[in-house]
Amino acid sequence: MDLTTIDNPSFLKKLDKEQMLELAKSIREFLIEKLSVTGGHIGPNLGVVELTMALHRHFDSPNDKIIWDVGHQAYVHKILTGRAGDFDSLRQYKGLCGFPKMIESEHDVWETGHSSTSLSAAMGMAAARDIKGDSNYVIPVIGDGALTGGMALEALNHIGDAKTDMIVVLNDNEMSIAPNVGALHAVLGKLRTAGKYNSAKDELEYILKKIPAIGGKVASAAERVKDSLKYLLVSGVFFEEMGFTYLGPIDGHDFNDLERNIQYAKKVDGPVLLHVITKKGKGYRPAENDKIGTWHGTGPYKIETGDFVKSPSVAPSWSGLVAETVREIARDDRRIVAITPAMPVGSKLESFAAEFPDRFFDVGIAEQHATTMAAGLATQGMKPFLAIYSTFLQRAYDQVLHDISRQNLNVFIGIDRAGLVGADGETHQGVFDIAFLRHMPNMVIMMPKDENEGQHMVKTAIEYNDGPIALRYPRGNGLGVPMDDRLSPIPIGTWEVLREGKDAAILTFGTTIPMALEAAETLSQKGVQVKVINARFIKPLDTKMLDALFATGMPILTVEEAVLAGGFGSAVLEYAQDSGHVDIPIHRMGIPDYFIEHGSVTELLVEIGMTAGHIVDHMETVVKEHAVEREQV
Amino acid sequence: MDLTTIDNPSFLKKLDKEQMLELAKSIREFLIEKLSVTGGHIGPNLGVVELTMALHRHFDSPNDKIIWDVGHQAYVHKILTGRAGDFDSLRQYKGLCGFPKMIESEHDVWETGHSSTSLSAAMGMAAARDIKGDSNYVIPVIGDGALTGGMALEALNHIGDAKTDMIVVLNDNEMSIAPNVGALHAVLGKLRTAGKYNSAKDELEYILKKIPAIGGKVASAAERVKDSLKYLLVSGVFFEEMGFTYLGPIDGHDFNDLERNIQYAKKVDGPVLLHVITKKGKGYRPAENDKIGTWHGTGPYKIETGDFVKSPSVAPSWSGLVAETVREIARDDRRIVAITPAMPVGSKLESFAAEFPDRFFDVGIAEQHATTMAAGLATQGMKPFLAIYSTFLQRAYDQVLHDISRQNLNVFIGIDRAGLVGADGETHQGVFDIAFLRHMPNMVIMMPKDENEGQHMVKTAIEYNDGPIALRYPRGNGLGVPMDDRLSPIPIGTWEVLREGKDAAILTFGTTIPMALEAAETLSQKGVQVKVINARFIKPLDTKMLDALFATGMPILTVEEAVLAGGFGSAVLEYAQDSGHVDIPIHRMGIPDYFIEHGSVTELLVEIGMTAGHIVDHMETVVKEHAVEREQV
Repeated sequence: MDLTTIDNPSFLKKLDKEQMLELAKSIREFLIEKLSVTGGHIGPNLGVVELTMALHRHFDSPNDKIIWDVGHQAYVHKILTGRAGDFDSLRQYKGLCGFPKMIESEHDVWETGHSSTSLSAAMGMAAARDIKGDSNYVIPVIGDGALTGGMALEALNHIGDAKTDMIVVLNDNEMSIAPNVGALHAVLGKLRTAGKYNSAKDELEYILKKIPAIGGKVASAAERVKDSLKYLLVSGVFFEEMGFTYLGPIDGHDFNDLERNIQYAKKVDGPVLLHVITKKGKGYRPAENDKIGTWHGTGPYKIETGDFVKSPSVAPSWSGLVAETVREIARDDRRIVAITPAMPVGSKLESFAAEFPDRFFDVGIAEQHATTMAAGLATQGMKPFLAIYSTFLQRAYDQVLHDISRQNLNVFIGIDRAGLVGADGETHQGVFDIAFLRHMPNMVIMMPKDENEGQHMVKTAIEYNDGPIALRYPRGNGLGVPMDDRLSPIPIGTWEVLREGKDAAILTFGTTIPMALEAAETLSQKGVQVKVINARFIKPLDTKMLDALFATGMPILTVEEAVLAGGFGSAVLEYAQDSGHVDIPIHRMGIPDYFIEHGSVTELLVEIGMTAGHIVDHMETVVKEHAVEREQV
Repeated sequence: MDLTTIDNPSFLKKLDKEQMLELAKSIREFLIEKLSVTGGHIGPNLGVVELTMALHRHFDSPNDKIIWDVGHQAYVHKILTGRAGDFDSLRQYKGLCGFPKMIESEHDVWETGHSSTSLSAAMGMAAARDIKGDSNYVIPVIGDGALTGGMALEALNHIGDAKTDMIVVLNDNEMSIAPNVGALHAVLGKLRTAGKYNSAKDELEYILKKIPAIGGKVASAAERVKDSLKYLLVSGVFFEEMGFTYLGPIDGHDFNDLERNIQYAKKVDGPVLLHVITKKGKGYRPAENDKIGTWHGTGPYKIETGDFVKSPSVAPSWSGLVAETVREIARDDRRIVAITPAMPVGSKLESFAAEFPDRFFDVGIAEQHATTMAAGLATQGMKPFLAIYSTFLQRAYDQVLHDISRQNLNVFIGIDRAGLVGADGETHQGVFDIAFLRHMPNMVIMMPKDENEGQHMVKTAIEYNDGPIALRYPRGNGLGVPMDDRLSPIPIGTWEVLREGKDAAILTFGTTIPMALEAAETLSQKGVQVKVINARFIKPLDTKMLDALFATGMPILTVEEAVLAGGFGSAVLEYAQDSGHVDIPIHRMGIPDYFIEHGSVTELLVEIGMTAGHIVDHMETVVKEHAVEREQV
């Protein structure tokens, strides 16, 4: 079947079993082929081919609301809702988004990227339906990993109590991104291996009949034996306790099993939990065999072999550099423990975990718990390295503020994927962390210019014992610079002059340093001498260097790959004002006040107007204006 | 017994039963008397007298770590650890803090204020113990309400899986602040009414013996019957499923029951859940009879009658004003629903709930779920009013950013208790919300100068349909101004000149407007004419008014009861810079970069340097400097 001819999912209702199987096959082939070129979340999508087809066959989207938790598993949904033709542009600039997107289709009723939001969204949509007297179905689809996120559990608690009509599909692939952890996972494991409702029921009725009649004093206990039947029969005791009707486990790759249970679920009053077992990567051998999450999201690959098309960079990845430096220091410093919320692979902590199993904690998708657990460790003299992607650290804002920063605890926060991340788009850009951490008292924030400075900053963070310290590092690889053998801490709050100049100064840090240096070189050829400063401490600022700079009166440009509102440039403005230097022309370049969509980081920076060329243009104007002003004075 | 002679809790180990009962009585009398003068969290503390005594008798604090969730129930703990003499200064400036505080005592091993952090902190402390090879006990004490907070559930999931040694005390008083909601609450209810382990066991062994031997095909089912015993016997199935050994329910006011179970729990390997039933307000009739949470935290009261000492204000409370205005508009606007995370009383939503039961949702202590549920409602054309205290909105930072602001949904966020809150201290000051909301695209933030403008802003928020809009309002009562009969929306992003002046301008909003006007009056008498602007929209700024102001060149002072870093003043600095007005002297007054402890708001503002007097002094200097500068030019 030519998938690009699909306009909307209503055609599914007319297919026979044979055609359903054929379509599933076509979708798998399509995904394996398209994603081999573009990259993307291949594993999760191959796992939900039958499930997505069954849902769209038995519900009427968009009147019925299908909500994809996290959203990276919505490719099949995108194909069935008329977007197969756009897959060549998947996750590319101005192309098809890798997550649900309302402007793409009326079938995308909820946008995500962060995990565990679907149940709360569903509760809101179901409440709206009930208030309006409508009768549509609401169907959140949530993975077993996402279910351990606190907000999903909050929602489960509320939905089960409110008895709101809703069909929660638990897409259980025994793995979220990395293999799952947590007690809830053990519960799911028991359910998976337990028998089905019907067969269990037969056996148990037989046993129960054999319990003799009991009178008087033990009657209440007998009643309890009967109540307990629900546990025995269904085995979905956890969800039943939470107030859900449990159906499952269901084979997520068997249309008959899926359809029978979906049809039954539609008839049940109150919330239903449909426990569907799927296999990530189903139908593509290399992805099926993946045990640690390598095939969760990938770059391009060779279909025949499953070999990844390697990027040419030989520089170490930032995650790897930081994690490995922590590991090295941890050999001598027994205070160090590492914590990750479900990102052991992404944060490159596998080696640390192997070498120090007792000092490594993967807490699952639970950023709040991870953060406050780090605070608890720090109260006992440990030095936790808390590795979290910038965008996911947003989930733990209150824990960083209330538990770590307020108690001024020695937690080393590794902010991975800081700055623009590219293909994952607006839900994943790590551009808010400076603005949300900078106003927290006691917080130190730094970002290195290259991987050599990065390793010294790891040392700095570990030796710093006056409170929390955050190290930002970007997605991707370092610059390939030579590495010092010996680690030495950098004095807190000190910047570094990278290039001298008398006409103006650029203050910047991290990934934008190369463009600043390039711009300075170009400007130099045009006769404008620009000083470039590595403002490696975003908080505290190097006020000594700033005072000296302000004293020269030269105009300043701050450049940051982060939001402008309340960001680093604002910190410089604030200090200039606080120190009585209202006369210094300070200009700021950074992320404006809107969400930045997907695309390559290079393309996005062009869109925003943050390139060496933009800096050159801007600086020429600034220096000219400043000269005119000085003449006037 | 004279409680002020207590130095540390070790004396408890030597008391006999009679003396324990007497001490409990003394502590209750002490609390009832002291709090009748100072006010404080009387209900929660009367409920944990015996529990706290039993814990300190059977554990060795501070080597054993007793962690109080939320922390407002730690008064008995403070008495037993040598702080009874400080209770006259409870919650007062420089006095005893109403929450655990490390600088007060080595027995305060963890500081809180926000709910649901204790289990994560305990996991951190227990992990540190295990890494170091120590053998102390870790005992988090968490209420049934706090347990529904997502991060507590995340921690429960991790602890149960890791099988870490820990004794979790579930202090179940069937009420957190307001009566609890949620499925978990229903589970606890079942446990409360179930029999005890021992008696149940006897009955059930009797029944089981009567099950005839069964062979062959049904053996596995028989095994399951046996496995199910655990559910039948203990009834703590939810916690057992999560990996905990469940003990209870225990009478939290019976020393024998408490001690027997604590002693048993100390011998159990892995995590134990001690389910203790307590009664809020125990031993003081008016507090015991409280059904809705009035006696959770109070001001001063008359001991004999339980009458509260009324404050003289006749102006409406801010919470009441906003909630009642929403209710009034909701009669005609069926899109409006109200959501509160466990604060129906504090947010004065009882009348709304009574009038519109189907459009009111108390989701329990679950700020994340509340926020994203509001987003879900908004996707369906509803207009959710989400009432959250500023300090608790911190918990939902990511949900506001990722779900509401990114999808640009029409959610009306009522930020209650914005600004300094006084006696609750540093964990509760609502001073971060501007800095953490201002950088979110699409967000509108406003704060009214008085309750009349407040009601018009409610109308503004409800009529605004271009995305999220937040209304900040302070703790306490309005100013008592006359109220307009007819509500009319205020154009978004427009400020108001409250007083004209040619020498300088003050930009401020909300609670700090009266001090600005007072300062302007004083300055006027000194010959300095200051313009005062009600900057009621914090985002977007009134750029038209700012442009006009900048054009005059007069110096500007921004005043805000919120953190300076990234705050409103920074927004003005940013706009001045963006619009090319680097020459305008802009000064900022607000909360500096440290946490503000407890005390009356007036005392705290004096400490910070934010009073009419400070503004006068500052302005005199500014205007003088500016005059000199102008002469030089």
